[in-house]
Amino acid sequence: MLGFCPVSSIIRGVSLLLFDKEFDKEFDREFRGSRLNTDPNKTINVGICGLGTVGGGTLSLLENNRADIEAKLGCSIEVTRVATRTLRPEVIAAFSGAGTDLFDVVNDPDVDIVVETVGGFDPAFELVKTALSNGKHVVTANKALIAERGNELFPVAEANGVTLAFESAVAGGIPIIKALREGLAANRIDSLAGIINGTGNFILTEMTDKQSQFEGVLKEAQDLGYAEADPAFDIEGTDAAHKLTIMASIAFGIPLQFDKTYTEGISHIEPEDILYAGELGCVIKHLGIARRSEKGVEMRVHPALIEKSRLLGNVHGVGNAVVVHGNEVGSTLYSGPGAGAGATASAVVADLIDIARQIQAGASTPFIPALGYCRENEGLEVLSIDEIESEYYLRILVSDVVGVLAGISGKLEKLAISIEAVIQKEAAGNLASIVILTHSALESQLNIAIAEIEAMDEVSGAVKRIRVAGFED
Amino acid sequence: MLGFCPVSSIIRGVSLLLFDKEFDKEFDREFRGSRLNTDPNKTINVGICGLGTVGGGTLSLLENNRADIEAKLGCSIEVTRVATRTLRPEVIAAFSGAGTDLFDVVNDPDVDIVVETVGGFDPAFELVKTALSNGKHVVTANKALIAERGNELFPVAEANGVTLAFESAVAGGIPIIKALREGLAANRIDSLAGIINGTGNFILTEMTDKQSQFEGVLKEAQDLGYAEADPAFDIEGTDAAHKLTIMASIAFGIPLQFDKTYTEGISHIEPEDILYAGELGCVIKHLGIARRSEKGVEMRVHPALIEKSRLLGNVHGVGNAVVVHGNEVGSTLYSGPGAGAGATASAVVADLIDIARQIQAGASTPFIPALGYCRENEGLEVLSIDEIESEYYLRILVSDVVGVLAGISGKLEKLAISIEAVIQKEAAGNLASIVILTHSALESQLNIAIAEIEAMDEVSGAVKRIRVAGFED
Repeated sequence: MLGFCPVSSIIRGVSLLLFDKEFDKEFDREFRGSRLNTDPNKTINVGICGLGTVGGGTLSLLENNRADIEAKLGCSIEVTRVATRTLRPEVIAAFSGAGTDLFDVVNDPDVDIVVETVGGFDPAFELVKTALSNGKHVVTANKALIAERGNELFPVAEANGVTLAFESAVAGGIPIIKALREGLAANRIDSLAGIINGTGNFILTEMTDKQSQFEGVLKEAQDLGYAEADPAFDIEGTDAAHKLTIMASIAFGIPLQFDKTYTEGISHIEPEDILYAGELGCVIKHLGIARRSEKGVEMRVHPALIEKSRLLGNVHGVGNAVVVHGNEVGSTLYSGPGAGAGATASAVVADLIDIARQIQAGASTPFIPALGYCRENEGLEVLSIDEIESEYYLRILVSDVVGVLAGISGKLEKLAISIEAVIQKEAAGNLASIVILTHSALESQLNIAIAEIEAMDEVSGAVKRIRVAGFED
Repeated sequence: MLGFCPVSSIIRGVSLLLFDKEFDKEFDREFRGSRLNTDPNKTINVGICGLGTVGGGTLSLLENNRADIEAKLGCSIEVTRVATRTLRPEVIAAFSGAGTDLFDVVNDPDVDIVVETVGGFDPAFELVKTALSNGKHVVTANKALIAERGNELFPVAEANGVTLAFESAVAGGIPIIKALREGLAANRIDSLAGIINGTGNFILTEMTDKQSQFEGVLKEAQDLGYAEADPAFDIEGTDAAHKLTIMASIAFGIPLQFDKTYTEGISHIEPEDILYAGELGCVIKHLGIARRSEKGVEMRVHPALIEKSRLLGNVHGVGNAVVVHGNEVGSTLYSGPGAGAGATASAVVADLIDIARQIQAGASTPFIPALGYCRENEGLEVLSIDEIESEYYLRILVSDVVGVLAGISGKLEKLAISIEAVIQKEAAGNLASIVILTHSALESQLNIAIAEIEAMDEVSGAVKRIRVAGFED
């Protein structure tokens, strides 16, 4: 078809362009239309760095669904280069370009899009940066990299006119990044809250269903392959905090601020807490919560009580779910598998297809507004955990003597923290458990109250405090 | 900036283009980059046809969130023309271009994108077609138009290199079209199922919560403004069938086939059915179900029993929700408000922002793959309702005599329909209700069984049949 696009008309187009804005559109249609038509079956060449669960899953998906994807796109996505540190013979057999030097992928001039599934920072950061600098689009599943070093990478993508896409970095197969960035783009997002770590949700679900202790369930999760040998990343909330940081950045238009995300794990949750939460009509979930108010932005990951009747209270096992509240749409919820080869690859390849469509459409600048472009509210302050307001569940072990509840209530009341519900239960020996659900209070005030309660003679040990999920849905 | 783009380099670009494929990219970046930079604050002009709930909501949203949208987009979206059949003075005051001739909007050379919120077919079809023919992008909330006449409109959009977007036509504020078209694009979609009519779900929720009769709750829904004076469109399933037709087209890559979508309403559901469903661990929801199997495609809207423990069983009131099962990702669920000015406008404006980003990126052909481009599986056959397989709930009113259950079971067994559960209850007089839950059976076989059962002397009246929701989640 290229031969049918006469030189004269193009040159006429160019000269007119400088004088006639109207022609601009016509020229675009003719010129770019011709380009597209000349090569409707342009192949998009993909290079994959790392062939673990996600990289391998991506390779399998592209093979399994090849015909469907080609039919949808009108072109094919070919993996032309792979590199992995331990190269198995079947990989060598499948790809003439297979190797162990990851930088060969990002420096290969024939690769259009690099998929980074190496994980971690080193060499992932340099790989992604080099790929972007080489004018390649990058798709990554690396939430740590985006959350902690994305502020350095997005400007490189922008400067090179390429896209750095990361749908798979948050909530696995759920297209939540796309929802925040595009589907809900008309809204001012007020809050979002999610179950964004499948391992943690599996553990809490099992503890709830079987009244089991944390340690036993963690062992079970490790045996099932849901939890790593070193589970800290999941159960201490770091993984969830990475994901929350990324979502908050897009939702509120702020830079990535992982270091300002409050992170609390679930290892201190005991079966009694789950039991008492149940008596209060709630379940305990490990949530990531981001809110925006006049005071500033909250970003926090911690266990929270949530009413059983709410959809987020009904997300069990290794599932993920995110509720987003926008000022016009109200609340929408997205749930699905947060991990696994197929689910994560689904998100990786969705990004590849998006970028392929962008290439096909002849876009010169990234159509996909990447995270790095979310800077419109750069000045919004992130609140410390002391500055948040929440309702609280408090569990206090006390000597079973007259007047102790009155004493505790008095201390809360003095700090203007009012009580919504109380449960009192006999514990072992001469002790009793008092469970208090407070109305909304400032966390710094609650901290004072807890210190005063812990100082009481009748109170044994530390006061257990669990926040109550506070967001619209 | 245009002045900084030297003519010589462009002409060099053009001449090189014909010989040098590599230059293509460089030329693109220079040329289009310059265009974009010359006018980073290009205003996108929008014309709105119809100022009812959706059109008015769109106008309000664009005003309320103007600053946020401009900050995100880097350009502004201005409503420069509106037309509505009944023109109120405040509209005239706000827009110099306000009028009552809807065609003035679609013929206005300054309008880039037309928002059609007139509804119905006449003049909506001609309006949209004219706008597309005039090279304007169109955003519509009109599900009837897309489902029944989209096959005529998408080719017009394609021929003119513009986008016909319709996120707001399905499930209100939930970005389900984007999820199907982009977020899940890497998957072969096996099935989807949704609660996609808020009025119907409100009625069934109220009937469930209050053990009320259909008629009374319908009246209540009308008083609350959820149901129209003529509620047939909602309660007979036409509205849900429009939405299901649209989703199935995208999910399976087939033409829009509204006439082949089986549609059954909820007016025949009685409180007893909801009660018995509850005893079987289920709720009754009005579902749209689309499935793809080796036999063909199923598209059907009908009431269905669904387990209480499933997420879709926990979507109450006027909410909407859709579960999609993809071959790689597994099941993901999307829920939120299916109607209302803010929610619908959120989806309309998301489409406007998508198109604006496409214009900004300098794309020459629509980046957004519209429904009209989903033709990859054009040949897939749509099955009739007789050809589907399902589990069934049957309620049979019988004379309370010995042997009647055995007689009914025998008839089912003879047709190889096996029974999963039976409930027998005394009814008024000498009658009893037998409720049977069958295992999976072919609908045409079940029809024979029902006819035989109805012919039994001991059986009074018609057998009530409700399908059991069969899809992955």
